[in-house]
Amino acid sequence: MKEVSTIVILFGGSGDLAHRKLYPALYSLYQQGLIKNHFAVIGTARRPWSHEYFQNQVVKAVKEANGNVEEKEVKEFASHFYYQSHDVIDVEHYIALKELASELDKKYQAQGNRIFYMAMAPHFFETIASHIKDQQLLGSGFNRLVIEKPFGHDLATAEKLNQAISASFPEDTVYRIDHYLGKEMVQNIMPFRFSNSLIEKIWNKNSINNIQVTLAESLGVGTRGGYYDGAGALRDMVQNHIFQIITLLAMGRPSDLTSEAIHQKKQELLASLVIPTPAEIKKSFVRGQYLAGSNHPDYRHEDQVDENSMTETFVAGKVQFAAGPVAQIPIYFRTGKDMKEKLSRIDIVLNKEQPLYGEAKEDVISIIIDPVAAISMMINGKKITGSALRLENINYEFSSKEMDEVPDGYVRLLRDVFLADRTNFTHWQELKQYWRFVDAVEETWQTENESGVEMDFYHPGEMGPKKADDIFESSDQHWIFN
Amino acid sequence: MKEVSTIVILFGGSGDLAHRKLYPALYSLYQQGLIKNHFAVIGTARRPWSHEYFQNQVVKAVKEANGNVEEKEVKEFASHFYYQSHDVIDVEHYIALKELASELDKKYQAQGNRIFYMAMAPHFFETIASHIKDQQLLGSGFNRLVIEKPFGHDLATAEKLNQAISASFPEDTVYRIDHYLGKEMVQNIMPFRFSNSLIEKIWNKNSINNIQVTLAESLGVGTRGGYYDGAGALRDMVQNHIFQIITLLAMGRPSDLTSEAIHQKKQELLASLVIPTPAEIKKSFVRGQYLAGSNHPDYRHEDQVDENSMTETFVAGKVQFAAGPVAQIPIYFRTGKDMKEKLSRIDIVLNKEQPLYGEAKEDVISIIIDPVAAISMMINGKKITGSALRLENINYEFSSKEMDEVPDGYVRLLRDVFLADRTNFTHWQELKQYWRFVDAVEETWQTENESGVEMDFYHPGEMGPKKADDIFESSDQHWIFN
Repeated sequence: MKEVSTIVILFGGSGDLAHRKLYPALYSLYQQGLIKNHFAVIGTARRPWSHEYFQNQVVKAVKEANGNVEEKEVKEFASHFYYQSHDVIDVEHYIALKELASELDKKYQAQGNRIFYMAMAPHFFETIASHIKDQQLLGSGFNRLVIEKPFGHDLATAEKLNQAISASFPEDTVYRIDHYLGKEMVQNIMPFRFSNSLIEKIWNKNSINNIQVTLAESLGVGTRGGYYDGAGALRDMVQNHIFQIITLLAMGRPSDLTSEAIHQKKQELLASLVIPTPAEIKKSFVRGQYLAGSNHPDYRHEDQVDENSMTETFVAGKVQFAAGPVAQIPIYFRTGKDMKEKLSRIDIVLNKEQPLYGEAKEDVISIIIDPVAAISMMINGKKITGSALRLENINYEFSSKEMDEVPDGYVRLLRDVFLADRTNFTHWQELKQYWRFVDAVEETWQTENESGVEMDFYHPGEMGPKKADDIFESSDQHWIFN
Repeated sequence: MKEVSTIVILFGGSGDLAHRKLYPALYSLYQQGLIKNHFAVIGTARRPWSHEYFQNQVVKAVKEANGNVEEKEVKEFASHFYYQSHDVIDVEHYIALKELASELDKKYQAQGNRIFYMAMAPHFFETIASHIKDQQLLGSGFNRLVIEKPFGHDLATAEKLNQAISASFPEDTVYRIDHYLGKEMVQNIMPFRFSNSLIEKIWNKNSINNIQVTLAESLGVGTRGGYYDGAGALRDMVQNHIFQIITLLAMGRPSDLTSEAIHQKKQELLASLVIPTPAEIKKSFVRGQYLAGSNHPDYRHEDQVDENSMTETFVAGKVQFAAGPVAQIPIYFRTGKDMKEKLSRIDIVLNKEQPLYGEAKEDVISIIIDPVAAISMMINGKKITGSALRLENINYEFSSKEMDEVPDGYVRLLRDVFLADRTNFTHWQELKQYWRFVDAVEETWQTENESGVEMDFYHPGEMGPKKADDIFESSDQHWIFN
């Protein structure tokens, strides 16, 4: 494997994400040889750490993630890490950062290549972007920006952030991370759809009755109440993960597998995204808050949460496109905290057959993302016991037996950044459409709040409020997973 | 369950089939209550057994088939069995049989219903049929004839046999047994095809590239060389089992699930059966004989086999229809003795997708009949290990975990006879078409024999002669199971 030469400047170097995900992922790429001798990572954050302390933190992070690592190798890896204490609004620190980057570029012969990684509180993104420009932190080789979610709070703030970023980073150098796009079965959606005639032949509005996307978490907000209460499930999960998954399910066949061709098809689809009217939102969307459970209070009494909060911890709704292979087909989604179990799944519900066999149910193809990577098909078959012909749903399931070998999403996504493959990152044009949709729903909810409409509630362990079972267009539609 | 009243007259009552299959199957129906108080079975055969000896044989047969039976119940069951020593060409014996039947009819209040079951050497079928007519053995209630294969040796002899039978038994009272039609996964073909939109949508000539039917046995002819050398694989397996399976795979959707509607669709299909020309037979058919193995000589040196025998122990070939959902699609078949393993399977090979993913293989749906009932789908998916997108074939397999509960085919088929359900029996009109096809192949082979063409050979444990890999129409077709 050809080694990539680069300096990585990581904003949020002392943070939880860096510790749990980024350092182990970088180590994995180091072991693979993608980064080897010609790279350095500058961690920056507010805390006054020394290089040595930082390197120890990196060693610790790698060891925590991988049970068994070779001490010598991980120390060698960590020796490429440097720390720059940093106040994001202080010009002086950007100048110091620039000097350190130049110095390391020479030391490691990084060829002027720089990857800037924003892995910190989102309200600093804009400030950092401005300083990168003003203090001329860009290198003489390639410059790439990796940015974690959330990208804005609504379309207006997202546009403002994007403007700040684009002053230094043209769109084709921006890598907006949606870690769902790094997941095994999310990455499997396109191959599944476009390499199997069995699947592609039925992937259209004549065969598919409805599609369901469920991303359920089993815990409450915990210590993240402060952030969460300002966001809610719609912004936190739908605007990014759910919409990215829906896009992969509804897009047309790309002409080839280049990032450009794939993003083009996604954008073609999203140009036909139907923005629901307030009336449709009232009918097809449900928001909810969880009630008290055995080890936490109800949402409104969680730490740092407004006691009159109208922030939803659950949302169910419907997405439709005017064009594409599943045009007009309802795509239902659900996501929330403190639900029955932690799982992410997609259920493709086919139309029922003409009634030759009375007992036949609709066929369902399920793509299970978490907790195991699996595809299952519920199809009708003869019931085995007894001689009379009775039908039963048979579950054909493939689960990965090699899940231990599945690399973490961050390994894949960082690898893509090093190799400049933007396929699995969110394009600004996509993000814009997602925000348009989310803004429309938020506005309607705001109006409801003002007219005194109350929140719906659900108990921990339920799949959201009862009302979520009533959003379907047709009486023979229902949630496949319950 | 409503009890059926009838006298069963079983020709071949001391035979192997009766012992291994029929008595245990009848016992199973007795336990289910389908036959209870108002039935009796008259076993007839050449051996001079007493009623009592016969009843002990029945008890023994049931015990051998079922590990655990209740002594009292099985003896009660066996008390309904009577034996009539019988010479099939002696008129006197038919008169004795008639008297015994009348007597038992009164004793058991069988309402004049009779089921005649021919489970003996086929060259007696015609004689027995004539005597049933001439000595007026038919009852005053319903009369049904159950007849084991082979039904004739070619079209001419089959027609002659059918004529003899139809003098006493109109077609809708004749139950030609093909025990493959009693098998779990063969009975599952129609529900699988017609109750799943996922399957029915692709079951056509646009999606299916070819179909493969493999019925492989792992043993040689053993002690059956005498019978087998006069038949061969084409007559012994293709004319019945393989053609019945192919018919189920290629027929159109019946209007309902009545026996009449299903047979009508089968006959519609078979009217379009393409009879291959001698040139096509030379190209698309391969016959072979097995060579010596570790525990048996080569076929020509088996017991009772002609040392210059040109009888095939293996045959591969192609069937096509001019009409129906898979019109023109090649349906390849293989069957033989002494092959790699004992298995029966159907592989539906779909067309390859347009090449978006270079490594994609064709999707295959496999219906596995023996040794386990299973459906497996080979479809393409992302290869899990590594970040780069590579494809692999994933095997989605459902195997019955309830195989212990699967009733033997004979239980199902005998039950159908008692209930007058002819769905899973071969209609004369179907049989006729099968013989037309088989005769065409036999004739071409005969011509080849006369012009000195030699047999192809294969080693035990192979999937037939090498030449069987060359019968495909197109270079990208190949046997899925190897």
